[in-house]
Amino acid sequence: MMNKRQSLSGIFQLIVTAPLVFGSVVASAYQPDAPHEKARQANAKAWAKQDADIDARLAKLEERFGKKPNIIYILGDDVGWGELGSYLGGKLRGTPTPNLDRMAAEGLQFLSHYAEPSCTPTRLALLTGRHPVRTGVDIVLWPGQKQGLAPAEVTVAELLSGAGYHTAMFGKWHVGDLEPHAPENQGFDYAYYGLYNGAIYSWANQDAFYKSQTLDGVGHFYDFPGTLADYEKKYGIKILGALEGRKGRGRREVARLTSESMVEMEARSIIKIKRFIQDKAKSDKPFFLYWASYAQQMASSPREYRFNEGLDYRNNQSAELAQHDDYIRQLLDTLKQAGIEENTLVIWVSDNGPMYAFWPNAGYSWLRGEKGEVYEGGVRTPGFARWPGMIEPGQTALDLISVTDLFVMAARIAGAEDAIPSDRVIDGINQLPLLLEGEGNGRRNYLFHYSGKDLAAVRMDEHKLHIKQGSRGGLPNMEIYNITRDPGEKFGAMYSQLWAVAPFQRLIGSHKQKIQEFPHREIRSGLFSNK
Amino acid sequence: MMNKRQSLSGIFQLIVTAPLVFGSVVASAYQPDAPHEKARQANAKAWAKQDADIDARLAKLEERFGKKPNIIYILGDDVGWGELGSYLGGKLRGTPTPNLDRMAAEGLQFLSHYAEPSCTPTRLALLTGRHPVRTGVDIVLWPGQKQGLAPAEVTVAELLSGAGYHTAMFGKWHVGDLEPHAPENQGFDYAYYGLYNGAIYSWANQDAFYKSQTLDGVGHFYDFPGTLADYEKKYGIKILGALEGRKGRGRREVARLTSESMVEMEARSIIKIKRFIQDKAKSDKPFFLYWASYAQQMASSPREYRFNEGLDYRNNQSAELAQHDDYIRQLLDTLKQAGIEENTLVIWVSDNGPMYAFWPNAGYSWLRGEKGEVYEGGVRTPGFARWPGMIEPGQTALDLISVTDLFVMAARIAGAEDAIPSDRVIDGINQLPLLLEGEGNGRRNYLFHYSGKDLAAVRMDEHKLHIKQGSRGGLPNMEIYNITRDPGEKFGAMYSQLWAVAPFQRLIGSHKQKIQEFPHREIRSGLFSNK
Repeated sequence: MMNKRQSLSGIFQLIVTAPLVFGSVVASAYQPDAPHEKARQANAKAWAKQDADIDARLAKLEERFGKKPNIIYILGDDVGWGELGSYLGGKLRGTPTPNLDRMAAEGLQFLSHYAEPSCTPTRLALLTGRHPVRTGVDIVLWPGQKQGLAPAEVTVAELLSGAGYHTAMFGKWHVGDLEPHAPENQGFDYAYYGLYNGAIYSWANQDAFYKSQTLDGVGHFYDFPGTLADYEKKYGIKILGALEGRKGRGRREVARLTSESMVEMEARSIIKIKRFIQDKAKSDKPFFLYWASYAQQMASSPREYRFNEGLDYRNNQSAELAQHDDYIRQLLDTLKQAGIEENTLVIWVSDNGPMYAFWPNAGYSWLRGEKGEVYEGGVRTPGFARWPGMIEPGQTALDLISVTDLFVMAARIAGAEDAIPSDRVIDGINQLPLLLEGEGNGRRNYLFHYSGKDLAAVRMDEHKLHIKQGSRGGLPNMEIYNITRDPGEKFGAMYSQLWAVAPFQRLIGSHKQKIQEFPHREIRSGLFSNK
Repeated sequence: MMNKRQSLSGIFQLIVTAPLVFGSVVASAYQPDAPHEKARQANAKAWAKQDADIDARLAKLEERFGKKPNIIYILGDDVGWGELGSYLGGKLRGTPTPNLDRMAAEGLQFLSHYAEPSCTPTRLALLTGRHPVRTGVDIVLWPGQKQGLAPAEVTVAELLSGAGYHTAMFGKWHVGDLEPHAPENQGFDYAYYGLYNGAIYSWANQDAFYKSQTLDGVGHFYDFPGTLADYEKKYGIKILGALEGRKGRGRREVARLTSESMVEMEARSIIKIKRFIQDKAKSDKPFFLYWASYAQQMASSPREYRFNEGLDYRNNQSAELAQHDDYIRQLLDTLKQAGIEENTLVIWVSDNGPMYAFWPNAGYSWLRGEKGEVYEGGVRTPGFARWPGMIEPGQTALDLISVTDLFVMAARIAGAEDAIPSDRVIDGINQLPLLLEGEGNGRRNYLFHYSGKDLAAVRMDEHKLHIKQGSRGGLPNMEIYNITRDPGEKFGAMYSQLWAVAPFQRLIGSHKQKIQEFPHREIRSGLFSNK
């Protein structure tokens, strides 16, 4: 594909490699989605100045530490908006989260962070800076599927590796079973990972699951009658366990997984993470660490965290969250002890909203909807960024931020923005101004919420449009919410907000036009064994 | 009515008038509901010691200021749980509430404050310390009804007046049209008040209402075709306007009400409130001030508060909340300037959850349900207590607290606990230990939620039972929620929580037994004109 826009983009890239003249305009080299492209043009001068200021701060920091900043991205699993103390949850829901709350309080808490509505899609979005639908994988992957993260996609780990970073991944990978999809082949020097969530391993482990249930309910769907081996044999689908991969050296299975050993894997991850941080702190190269924690979707929990004072001590979700919170403490303490907290950006976000089907072992949200839906409860997640000395503590920000933005920000921090490919649309937006200059400095005023292949909802400033299936006699079939006035999406009648239809249609049109110019990657799908 | 329990209670009162022997046991003189009676017996020693410690602190404060502490109770109107900044609302919902948030941060924020599910019932509960059903009025009153706050009820204003307090009331009275129900005849030295909410005055004022609507919606129910005078003439129902009453001198109407003049009345209230505080600060007697603010249920708003930055500047609810927040600033500043903030307890709570029927001019809650319902959204409200030097700042508390508790606490602070009548059940519980010693020191572990005459839900520790109408073939027809795990009441299936049925039945049984011993007051109801 080579069209006018692309060749223009190529010329633009060529020009901006003359840094003395165009300096901070480098930030504009890659291909954004249409609305951001427009915003970049409209705000070119102001943003260039702001970027130059930020570059100066980054340069000063680099001078002090003698290397680029370290970056740690942490993903929670199904942690809902309203579950952590900083979102009116915590002790209110029976599980205090003092360390996650401390991380939020020591930095900037996002009030409007958005992920994709489910597990695989969010991981793809974080890794590629793109809506998963563009990458050819728009679904949650199941064992044995041949789809996965295409080698032609450029991951944040590849970018940062190319920029001289140590790169490591821990936890739930879940973007493809096969070796080409694996983290050690997608930019990570080292990875200690599992391919799926906890639930899947519980299929074969129902006794342990039932035993771990609380007084509040019973498990009701892990009903495969037999062991993991029975399952694999019966259906010819291999379910890989805990894997360890090293760039250029392949991977090996280091443990079979059960719901108990999932817990063990999480416990080993934090040990490995601390060791990685301690080691790399001494290196003359910075590091990028991606920790896709299994908390809180395992079907078991570590005994030592089950005794939360006063409540549901046998509830796995609660114990897993308590465990994760304590691991966060260990991680932050390690950064401090290694003397690198002022040179390390840590961002924590959840991958999607709660999965109520797992109740009472489920996350929770104040918002309407759940994992899998594009109502706020599915896509708006807790999140915060901490970087002592760079991010002012004690802030909250309403600015929209997407998990795709993490890709661009990492590239920007690492000085690797030029390496972002310009032959595809990058949905991520540089949100460093939001992080470093606070609320109101976000550069995103729209969101496209996909449900599989379908554009299911669109955010435009404070309004959100849900696109419903089917016709309505020629009228648009939609709900429109003012998310500021109505964050719980209770009042979506279109007729009282007809004014918004045309502006939304124009926004969607520009997005679809861009897809025509840069079509989605196509991946032959498959539901076959990877054995 | 004179039964065994009552006569025992009488003897008990007699005994405890010997303060040297029984000291802090005085706190137990009045007749609580059955579960608290049991708790008082079980905790007699520990609570007596705690009460003695608190008495010592109060005595020290009295020595310093030369009088008892002042008490200010403020009621919001339909302000939902989730609407203020301290409940993850504020700027997130488009209306920052910096002063209400500051009040919360400077004291103790209640995470589990409960009101009655609607307007009149909550006002009655606050004034009498009793569930309204016991007082003979269990409904929201409409103009022309002859029911109201029975003269035989003892109000917090009567108690405090008897204990030497100046007493004043401002705002929405709404517990009866007739003179015997009026604040100046129910213990208040002075009252500047209206009988109803804003909506009712908008019946005759629809043009102004429609003009004030936002882009987000239109008014849809204020459809009486005509003026207030037309309405009164047609139906023979007199709707009183703004009233001014003085103890022993009756009342007079000082203004007819329209939705605009409601706003005016609110603006005049804060001026009068500030003057009252300034005057009484110099008195050698303490004061009790009850401000039942009209915010945020008026159908208009003051122009100067309509321009909230960035959002919905024409939305009345938003402007009213901004106005109220600013008035709170003025009130707190006045206390400070008068040098009495350390001798003044201020408690702010809302009267019930949001009334979505008024959308887009409605309050908002993160919780399920709305005003009128006993789901959490109807009865759990924001609330906080501030008392510099006495209440540690920066606290939040999960402890259950009921609006009825405010009655008992005021009596306790004023040294008027002995004057609480013991011939009736007082639902309020002394929660001064919670206020003064923090989370975990609350003395309430149950709540009875009434819907009109019906006991509709019961809270027991962290569980809540909803009693549903009709039979279920002999099985109890109920929903049971773990409110800690599931504050949004999403998972109420009874069958997974069968263990809780019997304990709940026992709790309800003890409550009903107490009603047999102390039957509800009976008031001849009437839907006739008071003209």
